[in-house]
Amino acid sequence: LKKKKEMGVLPHKKDSTYTFQILQGVDDSGLSASYTDSSDDETSPRDKQQKNSKGSSDFCVKNIKQAEFGRREIEIAEQEMPALMALRKRAQGEKPLAGAKIVGCTHITAQTAVLMETLSALGAQCRWAACNIYSTLNEVAAALAESGFPVFAWKGESEDDFWWCIDRCVNVEGWQPNMILDDGGDLTHWIYKKYPNMFKKIKGIVEESVTGVHRLYQLSKAGKLCVPAMNVNDSVTKQKFDNLYCCRESILDGLKRTTDMMFGGKQVVVCGYGEVGKGCCAALKAMGSIVYVTEIDPICALQACMDGFRLVKLNEVIRQVDIVITCTGNKNVVTREHLDRMKNSCIVCNMGHSNTEIDVASLRTPELTWERVRSQVDHVIWPDGKRIVLLAEGRLLNLSCSTVPTFVLSITATTQALALIELYNAPEGRYKQDVYLLPKKMDEYVASLHLPTFDAHLTELTDEQAKYLGLNKNGPFKPNYYR
Amino acid sequence: LKKKKEMGVLPHKKDSTYTFQILQGVDDSGLSASYTDSSDDETSPRDKQQKNSKGSSDFCVKNIKQAEFGRREIEIAEQEMPALMALRKRAQGEKPLAGAKIVGCTHITAQTAVLMETLSALGAQCRWAACNIYSTLNEVAAALAESGFPVFAWKGESEDDFWWCIDRCVNVEGWQPNMILDDGGDLTHWIYKKYPNMFKKIKGIVEESVTGVHRLYQLSKAGKLCVPAMNVNDSVTKQKFDNLYCCRESILDGLKRTTDMMFGGKQVVVCGYGEVGKGCCAALKAMGSIVYVTEIDPICALQACMDGFRLVKLNEVIRQVDIVITCTGNKNVVTREHLDRMKNSCIVCNMGHSNTEIDVASLRTPELTWERVRSQVDHVIWPDGKRIVLLAEGRLLNLSCSTVPTFVLSITATTQALALIELYNAPEGRYKQDVYLLPKKMDEYVASLHLPTFDAHLTELTDEQAKYLGLNKNGPFKPNYYR
Amino acid sequence: LKKKKEMGVLPHKKDSTYTFQILQGVDDSGLSASYTDSSDDETSPRDKQQKNSKGSSDFCVKNIKQAEFGRREIEIAEQEMPALMALRKRAQGEKPLAGAKIVGCTHITAQTAVLMETLSALGAQCRWAACNIYSTLNEVAAALAESGFPVFAWKGESEDDFWWCIDRCVNVEGWQPNMILDDGGDLTHWIYKKYPNMFKKIKGIVEESVTGVHRLYQLSKAGKLCVPAMNVNDSVTKQKFDNLYCCRESILDGLKRTTDMMFGGKQVVVCGYGEVGKGCCAALKAMGSIVYVTEIDPICALQACMDGFRLVKLNEVIRQVDIVITCTGNKNVVTREHLDRMKNSCIVCNMGHSNTEIDVASLRTPELTWERVRSQVDHVIWPDGKRIVLLAEGRLLNLSCSTVPTFVLSITATTQALALIELYNAPEGRYKQDVYLLPKKMDEYVASLHLPTFDAHLTELTDEQAKYLGLNKNGPFKPNYYR
Amino acid sequence: LKKKKEMGVLPHKKDSTYTFQILQGVDDSGLSASYTDSSDDETSPRDKQQKNSKGSSDFCVKNIKQAEFGRREIEIAEQEMPALMALRKRAQGEKPLAGAKIVGCTHITAQTAVLMETLSALGAQCRWAACNIYSTLNEVAAALAESGFPVFAWKGESEDDFWWCIDRCVNVEGWQPNMILDDGGDLTHWIYKKYPNMFKKIKGIVEESVTGVHRLYQLSKAGKLCVPAMNVNDSVTKQKFDNLYCCRESILDGLKRTTDMMFGGKQVVVCGYGEVGKGCCAALKAMGSIVYVTEIDPICALQACMDGFRLVKLNEVIRQVDIVITCTGNKNVVTREHLDRMKNSCIVCNMGHSNTEIDVASLRTPELTWERVRSQVDHVIWPDGKRIVLLAEGRLLNLSCSTVPTFVLSITATTQALALIELYNAPEGRYKQDVYLLPKKMDEYVASLHLPTFDAHLTELTDEQAKYLGLNKNGPFKPNYYR
Repeated sequence: LKKKKEMGVLPHKKDSTYTFQILQGVDDSGLSASYTDSSDDETSPRDKQQKNSKGSSDFCVKNIKQAEFGRREIEIAEQEMPALMALRKRAQGEKPLAGAKIVGCTHITAQTAVLMETLSALGAQCRWAACNIYSTLNEVAAALAESGFPVFAWKGESEDDFWWCIDRCVNVEGWQPNMILDDGGDLTHWIYKKYPNMFKKIKGIVEESVTGVHRLYQLSKAGKLCVPAMNVNDSVTKQKFDNLYCCRESILDGLKRTTDMMFGGKQVVVCGYGEVGKGCCAALKAMGSIVYVTEIDPICALQACMDGFRLVKLNEVIRQVDIVITCTGNKNVVTREHLDRMKNSCIVCNMGHSNTEIDVASLRTPELTWERVRSQVDHVIWPDGKRIVLLAEGRLLNLSCSTVPTFVLSITATTQALALIELYNAPEGRYKQDVYLLPKKMDEYVASLHLPTFDAHLTELTDEQAKYLGLNKNGPFKPNYYR
Repeated sequence: LKKKKEMGVLPHKKDSTYTFQILQGVDDSGLSASYTDSSDDETSPRDKQQKNSKGSSDFCVKNIKQAEFGRREIEIAEQEMPALMALRKRAQGEKPLAGAKIVGCTHITAQTAVLMETLSALGAQCRWAACNIYSTLNEVAAALAESGFPVFAWKGESEDDFWWCIDRCVNVEGWQPNMILDDGGDLTHWIYKKYPNMFKKIKGIVEESVTGVHRLYQLSKAGKLCVPAMNVNDSVTKQKFDNLYCCRESILDGLKRTTDMMFGGKQVVVCGYGEVGKGCCAALKAMGSIVYVTEIDPICALQACMDGFRLVKLNEVIRQVDIVITCTGNKNVVTREHLDRMKNSCIVCNMGHSNTEIDVASLRTPELTWERVRSQVDHVIWPDGKRIVLLAEGRLLNLSCSTVPTFVLSITATTQALALIELYNAPEGRYKQDVYLLPKKMDEYVASLHLPTFDAHLTELTDEQAKYLGLNKNGPFKPNYYR
Repeated sequence: LKKKKEMGVLPHKKDSTYTFQILQGVDDSGLSASYTDSSDDETSPRDKQQKNSKGSSDFCVKNIKQAEFGRREIEIAEQEMPALMALRKRAQGEKPLAGAKIVGCTHITAQTAVLMETLSALGAQCRWAACNIYSTLNEVAAALAESGFPVFAWKGESEDDFWWCIDRCVNVEGWQPNMILDDGGDLTHWIYKKYPNMFKKIKGIVEESVTGVHRLYQLSKAGKLCVPAMNVNDSVTKQKFDNLYCCRESILDGLKRTTDMMFGGKQVVVCGYGEVGKGCCAALKAMGSIVYVTEIDPICALQACMDGFRLVKLNEVIRQVDIVITCTGNKNVVTREHLDRMKNSCIVCNMGHSNTEIDVASLRTPELTWERVRSQVDHVIWPDGKRIVLLAEGRLLNLSCSTVPTFVLSITATTQALALIELYNAPEGRYKQDVYLLPKKMDEYVASLHLPTFDAHLTELTDEQAKYLGLNKNGPFKPNYYR
Repeated sequence: LKKKKEMGVLPHKKDSTYTFQILQGVDDSGLSASYTDSSDDETSPRDKQQKNSKGSSDFCVKNIKQAEFGRREIEIAEQEMPALMALRKRAQGEKPLAGAKIVGCTHITAQTAVLMETLSALGAQCRWAACNIYSTLNEVAAALAESGFPVFAWKGESEDDFWWCIDRCVNVEGWQPNMILDDGGDLTHWIYKKYPNMFKKIKGIVEESVTGVHRLYQLSKAGKLCVPAMNVNDSVTKQKFDNLYCCRESILDGLKRTTDMMFGGKQVVVCGYGEVGKGCCAALKAMGSIVYVTEIDPICALQACMDGFRLVKLNEVIRQVDIVITCTGNKNVVTREHLDRMKNSCIVCNMGHSNTEIDVASLRTPELTWERVRSQVDHVIWPDGKRIVLLAEGRLLNLSCSTVPTFVLSITATTQALALIELYNAPEGRYKQDVYLLPKKMDEYVASLHLPTFDAHLTELTDEQAKYLGLNKNGPFKPNYYR
């Protein structure tokens, strides 16, 4: 299972740190607080008899007694997810999800809990499993179970446990889901395989991960997608905030936590000037680094020029730079040949796609010595004593070595909630058996729900202005393709 | 005519300064060098008998003797339009416009001359008129005529002259155009009206202005567009560079030239956070101004927040700001009520669309005194002595009070040339009777031709990488909607 | 005289644009509004009989009838010099200059007029001459004369006129100065030479220019300075604002007005990373230029590194840069050898000291062709056609090609006023026959008077905090050497 | 002892993280890697018999067997302290410390080891003790002992151990120190108290800490300082780099590691705009925060304005800000009243002096609940549920919650080495019994030794230029007061 799950999860941008570290069996990091009590007993949750305080036993978690601690985590998360809280408030009267029966398969974290309790407040019934065998926060799962959510998840599931949990969510007497919220596509896959008839009652799928979305598009191409699906991963707010603004901060965070280096005066080459590259470059320039950029696309290249970066080929600067950062989405952008030519102490890391960008495999040769100097930090040592500092073994730096702010998870969770509402309430025929992006107006709504965090005051169009612009006063304000 | 032409030209972003100043009868500015000798004789060019040194008289310009001075201007422009020069070189062998008969109607400037001579080098025959009665640089027209181009244009045409010139371009014995390059739509309109049959041989229209593009879309909607048309105005490179990067520089330039103010510490409100607003805000923040933003679109609003700007309603800050800048594309964004509440010496200007954003008309009331303190700078004085500093009477600041770098005009001219090549060479059926954007790959090509200016070195995909990404090694590198 | 005056004035940072342009006989610029009516009659003011409306004729100006226009200029300047206006208000009761008889010799501009009228409001009597034969704004002089100030100055004085005017200020029946406000040292020099006895009653000299200050230090070294003198030029506020913040803005302004170039993506080398260099680099980096720095001082060099600039020798980048800017205070920083190696269209200009930094003389050789393409812009053309764009013939770019904001002049004028008050009221013995910097506390006061412009609110120390820090609650807050 | 040591150490800017955390008994952080093996046996080092491989037992460390691991740490540090390595190389021939007998009392870290081995390479004999009972890295001490350095230090000394170690350094048969390198003043104090006669042979003291320097100035004032002392703490390079550039980076690092917050769009108030405040403001502005500044000094206030920050009183913004950062060097800048008015989730931290700036004591009242949510992070909870996030209990954020880059420690260590060389070699009479700053030229030399790290190339003056500027070609390049 491990291999398989990694494939499903690794390219998955939104996952939070601990998930990854746990997934990869890295427990020595100390980079993020460990919320999960690991001193638990060894009995499998499947073998335990547990009830919550209301007498229900329709759940399976590690230890229901951890509910109180989990509740506190959820309360802290609520404070930083004002958009979902606002959604609860605004939709209090209407219950737009009344009648919805949502089966979900996501990471089980405090942020997910806030989402689930919001869906519930909007009228939905939920059943939930974990999308990853390592990422469940046991106390959060306990708190959800205590509150009456049928949750089937714990940290450290076996492969068999994993599918058993999913099955327990969907295979219930007297309850059949009519909505799917998936992250990675495993839940969707299970229903396709085991209960294809269920799709007759299902109104739609909301999928958040790159991998899951990819699977949906393949189903769609093959003519096998039998309900509408919402691609949350590619919504404007998620892309723009996750990629540009988050990376602007997490590149600094990831480098500092792993190397304690000083940015001022350092020479850095950033491979790729898409949103991620733009964020990395802006941050490093602001901190006093001298940044070079490589690009294949002339338009992004011209933007790099206008933003004040020298556009070079990697070979031109590889001997002189102190840091190499990849954000291309491509493979073998940094080759063994490049690595051979880097100067002593050069730091190499990846902010882009998966773990393909740096040819790490090429470093696993007998003449090179690997030395683990910290969690996520390896020195690769050449015969002549030259050391390259490789971070996170070429996996995503910001997921492995920094944390993802709740604010970003909030944008995603809000988008998921709105996608569910939209699909559930859409009039017959609005959505076909295809993969959709959230309508522009919904995207705008997600953004608007996050403005109060910044005490930001939106201007409203006058009637006269709306008419002049040919716009509805409530949006959408831009064409769909506008980014 | 004047009124009509203004309507056609005013919202027209790309026009260079002098055009506007001249158009508006403002000759006292001194802000830009006057290249045109205004001490000419008063005889109408239509009444003159002129020949170039090769004996041709198939042109009508102010004074063929000014050719040498015009040639120098063209040579200077050539140095700053390397993309067109590269196009000449690269296409030397193939002559992709061999057989093309292009009739053009644009501003007649040194930059246009470089474009025309490039089209000629690519194999085309050209006939040209001016799209504006005031904007022709007579010496450039003379230089073109001397080089054998049938040019019909001079500064200060009458309305009758204007249409006469256009007619002389198209109504020729033994020559019929097969391509149209238009700026504002007047040439296209004339052919539609007078010589509709010509469209049978015309392969396409390339149009650059907002106004002209708007007309084409209306024709298309009405089912009356009878040839394919290329919308150059909305190409990525033009939009991104003209709006974001140019405005980043021209907002500072326009404010300095008109007011000599110091930016450091000034409080500024920028209305609108699209590309233009983003450029203005970035520049002013960098110069030490404190910038507030207003927005109607929550997504742009959230971007403003993340970029470090307080998002406010105009009313909240109108009493305290030193500068108000509009870039919304909307009307009456700054109302008389706002103007009444501004503090003494507040500067008000427009970087957005047309002259509608500030309700300047509301200031033309008896109790307010207008005092012209410099070219393009008015003090509007309230009864209590308060003065508002209104720039360019609310028209576009960067067109009225600063200059447009040749580099930007180069991007547009190159795009025009490529659009002509594309339409002229497109296989039957690729383009229908509709309005098109330049294919992504062409956009990328325009960008790539401007990279050498920055000594920028593009990276090429390896075969393996191209395969991995599913891309052609030569592009396009992004989907059409990517921006 | 011209030669001599240029020596006195050229290194003089604070001079405003027109002064310089006029001084250098450059009237064709159009860069700054010309306030002075040049169509005046040709009679020398010394030969005219003029009276102001109160019947006084104790002045000598071009044309007393221009007073009204001059008054308006002064009123506009008042609005941008709030510190002096505040000084008038705060000192209304006390009249700290009661009994002061100030003889002044400065540029006669609207800003100077605001200073003079402030001194008068503080209780002083003033007599004034111009420190430069070209820089007087005749209508301002007229307005001052009309208001009763004995002013002796006009634009276009002869050398004889110049000294005659100075003499008319000091050589008066029944009036003897007790304070000197000088700019360049000519007035001080004249009194030393002609009326040395006057120094018995003089309480001090306030001098603003580099040249004048230099002369005073020489007098002091030689033991010949017979009264205390205040060096206004080196006060913290003046240095920090004039050099860092002003240059940050004027480098952009100067380059744009002369060349209309685009900053984005341009490669620039800035020679010298003192305050001026820091300002230039910050601005250009912010506008998207790629900036290299040269330095001789390792501390400033390390600052450049930490601020994100590659520290190079000029030779390393001279072939590739688009712009060369000198701000070293040194000579021959850019040599003919460097100029020979620059690429075509490279722009060369000076923001530093005087006109020594670029070896312009080396370009005046027969094989090079000079072409004046605009006011202040020369193309120097090599035999192979390469053109170097030389701005302001190597003189100070920001003085020659941009304007100095009134806000900066306000800081200087306020410092002058406070220096006069301090010297006039200092108890016996506080100042000896030496050159002094303004006391820290006064510097802080000048700064505090400019804060309201920014609606800035200073925090006051509590008694407890003041005691903890060992400071007086009213300052000074830092040791003298703190910068 | 603990109290006393804290007083000596707390205001001590340069201390690295672990020191502080350990000192304060905070071992649960996980923020920095723990280099020290804490599973050691419990025997006091004073009771052990240990010899290094050469048979020497003139040392007292935890476990000589850890030498190899310590050596690796030292080697890693050497790579990031090129200035000391260069010093070793350059001074290879001359041995400027030949004959020097240096007794030192500093933190025992890898960086210190590089310093000690450099001093040794320069000819000095060294004996060393720890200046802090918790900060010694045992394995580094072991490595030094193995290399023959008489080192007396281990992690977790008792107070008695502490003074015993110091005494073992100075009270030796047949060896008497002639130089002191102190950090905190305890060593100096011990010699004053126990062996005052030693000062007859001592050529000088080099002191690095604020506390130690303060003690020296007091001795000097009291006329009791009997040898020259160098104040390393106030050298330009240390101040400018430690305060401005380091804080620019560590404010971001400290906030991220403790709170995982997102900077974009956050409202922050920074109290104090000295070097530290400037660094914090620049970084947060660059990351998209909206920053307000408070100041008492009008000059710094005006700089804040010109740099683009709203200058406010704390009261004006306290209700709206998300983060409050103090950097004033003052006390009670944030009072209980301010804390009462902050909004929920407001983060409060200190980057300034000691732990006085925030009135933390005022929060220790019964109605408020403290909740430790992470190492260094407390939630202080008001009766109404409002939570304030207090970092490091108001102590220095960057020392408590981030790390100090080796590069900065390198600057300090190099300055210490040069100060020792200068004092040891100074001709009779150059230094009196007073406290001195390092001569400008030495400061410049320290800077120059760090330039190669950035591949930075300094320009050399020509003879002609040096003469023109009146400078020696080798510096110093600026007057002493220049900063």
